[in-house]
Amino acid sequence: MRIGNKEAAEELLCHDNIVILTHQNPDGDTLGSGFALYYALTGLGKTATLRCADPLPNRFSYLYPDYQEKSIPEQYIVAVDVADLVLLGSLKEEYEDRINLCIDHHPSNSEYAEKLCLHVKSAATCELLFQILEEMQINIDTRMADCLYTGLATDCGCFKYSNTTAHTHLVAAKLLNLGANLNFINEYLFDTKSKARLVAEQKVLQNMEYYLEDKVALTVITKEIIEQTGVDENELDGVSAIPRSIEGVEIGVTIREKSDNIYKISVRTGQKANASKICSAFSGGGHARAAGCMIKGDLSFVKKEMVNVCKEFI
Amino acid sequence: MRIGNKEAAEELLCHDNIVILTHQNPDGDTLGSGFALYYALTGLGKTATLRCADPLPNRFSYLYPDYQEKSIPEQYIVAVDVADLVLLGSLKEEYEDRINLCIDHHPSNSEYAEKLCLHVKSAATCELLFQILEEMQINIDTRMADCLYTGLATDCGCFKYSNTTAHTHLVAAKLLNLGANLNFINEYLFDTKSKARLVAEQKVLQNMEYYLEDKVALTVITKEIIEQTGVDENELDGVSAIPRSIEGVEIGVTIREKSDNIYKISVRTGQKANASKICSAFSGGGHARAAGCMIKGDLSFVKKEMVNVCKEFI
Repeated sequence: MRIGNKEAAEELLCHDNIVILTHQNPDGDTLGSGFALYYALTGLGKTATLRCADPLPNRFSYLYPDYQEKSIPEQYIVAVDVADLVLLGSLKEEYEDRINLCIDHHPSNSEYAEKLCLHVKSAATCELLFQILEEMQINIDTRMADCLYTGLATDCGCFKYSNTTAHTHLVAAKLLNLGANLNFINEYLFDTKSKARLVAEQKVLQNMEYYLEDKVALTVITKEIIEQTGVDENELDGVSAIPRSIEGVEIGVTIREKSDNIYKISVRTGQKANASKICSAFSGGGHARAAGCMIKGDLSFVKKEMVNVCKEFI
Repeated sequence: MRIGNKEAAEELLCHDNIVILTHQNPDGDTLGSGFALYYALTGLGKTATLRCADPLPNRFSYLYPDYQEKSIPEQYIVAVDVADLVLLGSLKEEYEDRINLCIDHHPSNSEYAEKLCLHVKSAATCELLFQILEEMQINIDTRMADCLYTGLATDCGCFKYSNTTAHTHLVAAKLLNLGANLNFINEYLFDTKSKARLVAEQKVLQNMEYYLEDKVALTVITKEIIEQTGVDENELDGVSAIPRSIEGVEIGVTIREKSDNIYKISVRTGQKANASKICSAFSGGGHARAAGCMIKGDLSFVKKEMVNVCKEFI
């Protein structure tokens, strides 16, 4: 059942012993909304715990310096930023039949929860949760403001992506007024890269090839680069954005070697070409501007296949 | 004489035949505020022109697709985002004694104008000008919103830099509601790099050296790189930010070869070291987090000198 912010606020206020579920491979938005809610509920004197199928990443540890998951009598289950049960990972079986409330912003939400508060126009679940916390008349402290700002900023590329709206900026303004530590968070999240990533970037730039009157840029990340640099999955996602960012390039292709003759392809496009359609030629998919697929074969074959399909979309 | 927004608005409303002066090496903020004001004044039926010592750059041509500087009877002179007369470049002599109004946000403003409307807490002159246009009860159209958003976003690194305030976000929210084309502007300004810049970045990453337990990262941009790639000055500024952005690096140093044995140094620092103090050891200066200086000598001497001084600030 779909519910509004006010009803979601009432649900949270009238229950206790609350389990907050976040999605696997946790990002800034699921952790930011999860911990903001955790601090709000415990601040009201309620008992709560936050759970995630994966270990909480060091990258966001400034949001939960002292957090320890604890065993509580479980009376009410809330999922935040979790679009589908499968994203609960190893926690799916334990909770799938009894999730009372889901707070989310993904258009693909599969409506698995008893009650769903879904705002697809919110750039982040944190943007929506902020409104619910306001409804709850929570006194948002700097720690909660940091959580909410982190989720908001990470999901909209620090206000750069097209999901940013006037309302996103209004919420950011309120969070800064509430003491969110913009200086630290922005520099740490958006202006800091690991050495491994920089070395990987250098190789990716060195391997850049241009096709179809330079409208297609294509690069390769070999297993050798990944092993030599130790760059991790999350960082490689950032690297995949590079080819499309080149002036004049409409389709950016990053070919990543997974194992011998198996390649994972990431496609990013400009305003015109459709990345999802390009990848569907290889049984892949995704969004209009960012999609992926797998291709088997040797590298020169994979490149040729990709360029051939790109030709139809230029 | 210092004046407030309301008085600045009255000044602009009660004069006609207005020359708008922008600073040399024009950036998004001087052009954004200049053209927003130009469109506002001409929209009121006034005669106005905008002047700049340098040609208007192609990068921002979406703000002035049809603009032609024209000769007008000059009755009132307004400088926007111009901190000092010297920044008028070749227009200095013609206007220095008769600038009626300056609208600016630089703390270093030298108070050269008859009347000065200065808000040093504004992230951009566009943030301040927006308030003045509101005082003037201007009907801000999408073209003006694009100008103001461009200046706002470029001066605060798309809301990433520490000069971003709650008020900056509030103005951004209003500009999006007024129709600013966030999708195009953000992708074009913040997610697009020239091929020349990417090749220069690749070389800079390749040349990266680490000192003092990796707290100092240092790279070199040779004349050869600049000539081979054709990368321009503005783009090199972006490249200078790379060394400091590496995880764990407190001082990032970019050494640019100007001519034989003459090197221009750009220093960027984290929260601790003071870039301006480091550069003052070589008679340079700037801000706490970003500063510059010149050093003469061969490259190995220049590196050694820099690293020696950095040692005192780690």
